[in-house]
Amino acid sequence: FSEVAERTEEPGVATGLAWTPTGGDILFIEASAARGNGRLILTGQLGDVMKESAQLAYSYVKAHAQELGIPLDAFRYWDVHVHVPAGAVPKDGPSAGVALLTALASLFTQRRVRHTVAMTGEITLRGLVLPVGGIKEKVLAAKRAGIQTVLLPEKNQKDIEEIKPESLEGLEITYVRRVHEVLAQALEPEPVRDPQEVYHVPEAERTPAPANGAASSTVIAE
Amino acid sequence: FSEVAERTEEPGVATGLAWTPTGGDILFIEASAARGNGRLILTGQLGDVMKESAQLAYSYVKAHAQELGIPLDAFRYWDVHVHVPAGAVPKDGPSAGVALLTALASLFTQRRVRHTVAMTGEITLRGLVLPVGGIKEKVLAAKRAGIQTVLLPEKNQKDIEEIKPESLEGLEITYVRRVHEVLAQALEPEPVRDPQEVYHVPEAERTPAPANGAASSTVIAE
Amino acid sequence: FSEVAERTEEPGVATGLAWTPTGGDILFIEASAARGNGRLILTGQLGDVMKESAQLAYSYVKAHAQELGIPLDAFRYWDVHVHVPAGAVPKDGPSAGVALLTALASLFTQRRVRHTVAMTGEITLRGLVLPVGGIKEKVLAAKRAGIQTVLLPEKNQKDIEEIKPESLEGLEITYVRRVHEVLAQALEPEPVRDPQEVYHVPEAERTPAPANGAASSTVIAE
Amino acid sequence: FSEVAERTEEPGVATGLAWTPTGGDILFIEASAARGNGRLILTGQLGDVMKESAQLAYSYVKAHAQELGIPLDAFRYWDVHVHVPAGAVPKDGPSAGVALLTALASLFTQRRVRHTVAMTGEITLRGLVLPVGGIKEKVLAAKRAGIQTVLLPEKNQKDIEEIKPESLEGLEITYVRRVHEVLAQALEPEPVRDPQEVYHVPEAERTPAPANGAASSTVIAE
Amino acid sequence: FSEVAERTEEPGVATGLAWTPTGGDILFIEASAARGNGRLILTGQLGDVMKESAQLAYSYVKAHAQELGIPLDAFRYWDVHVHVPAGAVPKDGPSAGVALLTALASLFTQRRVRHTVAMTGEITLRGLVLPVGGIKEKVLAAKRAGIQTVLLPEKNQKDIEEIKPESLEGLEITYVRRVHEVLAQALEPEPVRDPQEVYHVPEAERTPAPANGAASSTVIAE
Amino acid sequence: FSEVAERTEEPGVATGLAWTPTGGDILFIEASAARGNGRLILTGQLGDVMKESAQLAYSYVKAHAQELGIPLDAFRYWDVHVHVPAGAVPKDGPSAGVALLTALASLFTQRRVRHTVAMTGEITLRGLVLPVGGIKEKVLAAKRAGIQTVLLPEKNQKDIEEIKPESLEGLEITYVRRVHEVLAQALEPEPVRDPQEVYHVPEAERTPAPANGAASSTVIAE
Ligand SMILES: [Ca+2]
Ligand SMILES: [Ca+2]
Ligand SMILES: [Ca+2]
Ligand SMILES: [Ca+2]
Ligand SMILES: [Ca+2]
Ligand SMILES: [Ca+2]
Ligand SMILES: [Ca+2]
Ligand SMILES: [Ca+2]
Ligand SMILES: [Ca+2]
Ligand SMILES: [Ca+2]
Ligand SMILES: [Ca+2]
Ligand SMILES: [Ca+2]
Repeated sequence: FSEVAERTEEPGVATGLAWTPTGGDILFIEASAARGNGRLILTGQLGDVMKESAQLAYSYVKAHAQELGIPLDAFRYWDVHVHVPAGAVPKDGPSAGVALLTALASLFTQRRVRHTVAMTGEITLRGLVLPVGGIKEKVLAAKRAGIQTVLLPEKNQKDIEEIKPESLEGLEITYVRRVHEVLAQALEPEPVRDPQEVYHVPEAERTPAPANGAASSTVIAE
Repeated sequence: FSEVAERTEEPGVATGLAWTPTGGDILFIEASAARGNGRLILTGQLGDVMKESAQLAYSYVKAHAQELGIPLDAFRYWDVHVHVPAGAVPKDGPSAGVALLTALASLFTQRRVRHTVAMTGEITLRGLVLPVGGIKEKVLAAKRAGIQTVLLPEKNQKDIEEIKPESLEGLEITYVRRVHEVLAQALEPEPVRDPQEVYHVPEAERTPAPANGAASSTVIAE
Repeated sequence: FSEVAERTEEPGVATGLAWTPTGGDILFIEASAARGNGRLILTGQLGDVMKESAQLAYSYVKAHAQELGIPLDAFRYWDVHVHVPAGAVPKDGPSAGVALLTALASLFTQRRVRHTVAMTGEITLRGLVLPVGGIKEKVLAAKRAGIQTVLLPEKNQKDIEEIKPESLEGLEITYVRRVHEVLAQALEPEPVRDPQEVYHVPEAERTPAPANGAASSTVIAE
Repeated sequence: FSEVAERTEEPGVATGLAWTPTGGDILFIEASAARGNGRLILTGQLGDVMKESAQLAYSYVKAHAQELGIPLDAFRYWDVHVHVPAGAVPKDGPSAGVALLTALASLFTQRRVRHTVAMTGEITLRGLVLPVGGIKEKVLAAKRAGIQTVLLPEKNQKDIEEIKPESLEGLEITYVRRVHEVLAQALEPEPVRDPQEVYHVPEAERTPAPANGAASSTVIAE
Repeated sequence: FSEVAERTEEPGVATGLAWTPTGGDILFIEASAARGNGRLILTGQLGDVMKESAQLAYSYVKAHAQELGIPLDAFRYWDVHVHVPAGAVPKDGPSAGVALLTALASLFTQRRVRHTVAMTGEITLRGLVLPVGGIKEKVLAAKRAGIQTVLLPEKNQKDIEEIKPESLEGLEITYVRRVHEVLAQALEPEPVRDPQEVYHVPEAERTPAPANGAASSTVIAE
Repeated sequence: FSEVAERTEEPGVATGLAWTPTGGDILFIEASAARGNGRLILTGQLGDVMKESAQLAYSYVKAHAQELGIPLDAFRYWDVHVHVPAGAVPKDGPSAGVALLTALASLFTQRRVRHTVAMTGEITLRGLVLPVGGIKEKVLAAKRAGIQTVLLPEKNQKDIEEIKPESLEGLEITYVRRVHEVLAQALEPEPVRDPQEVYHVPEAERTPAPANGAASSTVIAE
């Protein structure tokens, strides 16, 4: 579908599903990177729980960098900015977890998000996908937007079974239990560029991290 | 027109359009740079959403530095200050996004903003231009201020069609879908100075960035 | 039991017990590490007291690193993130202290938490285990979840004696007075990997800590 | 007049004009510098808008250092403190902008502020002087304090024209449009000391700035 | 007495006395150190005044390091954490000052706190001991807990004289005017380990402090 | 008088005068220094205005270090802590300015504060002494405390003239206009130790200041 395809044509943008008082809607998670020093910048009037979701997604990608083929320098010498349009609409809750994770993993692996896929689900730090609410509205919104495949938490299967099958015609529902299944389903297999090159940092600009440097000992990700 | 021409005669000032309870108004976005270390300083009693817009604009310019011909040192060894007069008037909302982006791009590319152009529109991190409100009041304010060309989000075309054509006489409306179209329309093609020289940093004052240095891991741009 | 076993199959996840208005429940404490500089990142909508508990647990593990066989670099050159799902549920109170401590000790020693064990209890900085409330509900929740052994503060013994013995059938209650008894009971004796290797930092990435560097002199762990 | 002359006898003190519920008053802006690292310290119970005015003044002076003959080290290796007595009186609003700018420019250029001059007006980042309120009360207060010349924004001319001429007898009103006109009128032409010497930093105490070091990426000057 | 003796058997734990709405109670101040960079971490739901007391105690110990035989590295290359159980009980007021000071001095001198001694009293930065409230309840709580000697501020003598002598039987009251008298009474004369060894930092991990580094110029200890 | 003499027997403690709802009182300002990096630590439940007074005093002493004979290293490599007992009593207002300044100047010059002198008065950044309230109550409190000389702002002379002369018998009132007069009257002429030695920093512990390092560009001293 045109809007989704256009917005996800480069790595770093994932298609999520939102519940709103007037029905479901699709929502884009945009991530981009710039040289910096490991900051995670969040915009889009995100509430506390959603900011924590973004931090969980960032920690997960960082902790699994090696198996995802991401160079560690991407976290040391680059900042990442995550924005969720529209800018003036307050957003909160844990259900964008899988989409936040997918946008970040796409950005750092340079594998595009399939434009046929949308997703919803809470993530945990150790990689589980937990069930969320508003399934019916979200799935119907995905269908309206021309999505072909919706990734849902396994424990939301009962919510789908309560929807009339004809409403779901043409839509494939894929259930996932763990984060790595999400990435396998949502990301294209081949990167558009080699992440080792994209996130390469010249030797002259590298420096060891100061141990116990200026960080406060407790950082609350909200 | 005299006031706009005077205020935009140097790079770093863009002309935006504001909706106010008593009608539309033009508004100037002023940006200036000084040696520092990559800070974005915001003044003008900006609200949370507008501060996030400025952060989006800054991230976009930084992420597209190479294609815009901006040396990376401009973000590492310079601070940028963005001010929106008048100083005591609270301002908020996402609709100054394109003007914030244009002021920053003008400052860093050293290409002046055309004094015949005013603009309104929300931006996203990945470069889309989203529709905003108050189009009628804004366009009429632009005309009163002697503006020749107004840049509007494509999805605001319907709002223009509801205005009587004679009200718009002498005014050219240009619709944009993406940020790079804004810059192509709003910036003069030639820089007044070479940005590589303006933002040059002597070798003796350069130092590698500390990885994971003193930054907190989550920065909320508000 | 399947869910507990699956979630604790890798080091860094401990099974706690929570009291809720509708009865007890099991709760997982997830910890993971990534290269950084000694930060403790907390998510899961934790209240002030619970954040302080996590800080106590972190300080305890750090101060006892040598006897636990943890290299000091694990605290200097790594960040640790602790999350307590579900992400949108506010949680507070000191009673997750022993589970927070166990998750962190498991992560840093690389010894898995026994999937047959759940626990509750407040900890102090110097290693005492203090009594907590909601014992009856917590113990019954442990039983429902298939837990075999529940670790409780010694001073909660009186609460167990008020429960009908048949309710506890098949459940072993182990009372603990000090933190090191908790770890002896809860962690498997052998690490799955050698923590000296897991937390090894190449010489080129090491740097001395700046004395009185950028830290504020008073840090409140909340 | 004695008090103004005494307080402005050294560079770094400017005479502003304040509107108060009981009439106008003169007000002194005091600035002083001490070795540090580029901080701007503000005291005097200043409100958000007035703090932003001070930040605007500081950014302007920094960005125009070369044309004002100020060594860049004055901003890198010195802190500047701005205080507005009396210490317990809350103050706010943008109208002290020109006086804040003048005090800072005086301090850094080492040119004294003329003790015959008082001023009011908002400044913008790019050097415009915008009109302010309370002109009548301010001008009469200047006259009572023995001031000879009052600098006013050009757009406040209409407010002066509404005052009976005999009230202004002996007072010269000078209108300004841009910040550089303020400095030309308010500062003595010759410095009392050479700023290159005053702000000289020995080689052994100089160090390159850390790029993207510990600064947060967004700094709000309030 | 058993609980006090057990908890104070290692350096860094002092026994304080608290007034509560239901009578007095003993309270333990726990301190522990870990490699870091001079931070003071406070937990136990401490209020502003009590946090300031801890900061006073830390400053006093640091300023008197030489006469107490503490190596300066203990403040530069180590963090200290102070916790006051129980974790969920809010605590405030200045009267734990002497116990906070004693716990810190014990930790850094490695001299144990006598398990026969409890104490109450406000401290000042320059080493005075000021009187506090709730003396009767506190002293009786000390007696119940098996304490033999209670250290009190000299100016609280009048409060003791109002208590019936038989209530105090077996309890020795020692009045103190200055902090060094507290330490002489409360700490065992011999360290359990040599603080020069405990707080030794290898040469390779030492680095000079950055002057005017990242510290804000005003730190409020609350 | 014994209490004042005892408390001021070492450099760094000054005697101020406070107005309270129940009459005047003397109040001690305690300052002490410890190796650090230029921080000003404030305790004693000080309000915003009083914190700003302390910052003014610190800036004044720093800016006048050379004429006071204080080595610059005292501000770069030492932290200073200012405490105002009693710890639980909230204090605010600008009138402790001269006493705060005197305590800091005494600490850094190592000249003791005369124990016969008490003082009140607001200070400004550039060294003026401004009038304050509660003069009658303060002066009588000084007399009760055995003070011989009270330093008052010149503009408070009218308040003294309204007091019956016999109430002031035996008390000398000295009026001051500028801060340097305060120090000349309040400090003993000879230091007890040489400040160059007290604040000496070994070469190996010195390091250049990072320019524009980690400081935020605007620091509000409250
Ligand atoms: Ca595209
Ligand atoms: Ca929250
Ligand atoms: Ca111009
Ligand atoms: Ca907000
Ligand atoms: Ca697993
Ligand atoms: Ca709290
Ligand atoms: Ca003078
Ligand atoms: Ca504000
Ligand atoms: Ca023990
Ligand atoms: Ca407070
Ligand atoms: Ca003494
Ligand atoms: Ca305030």
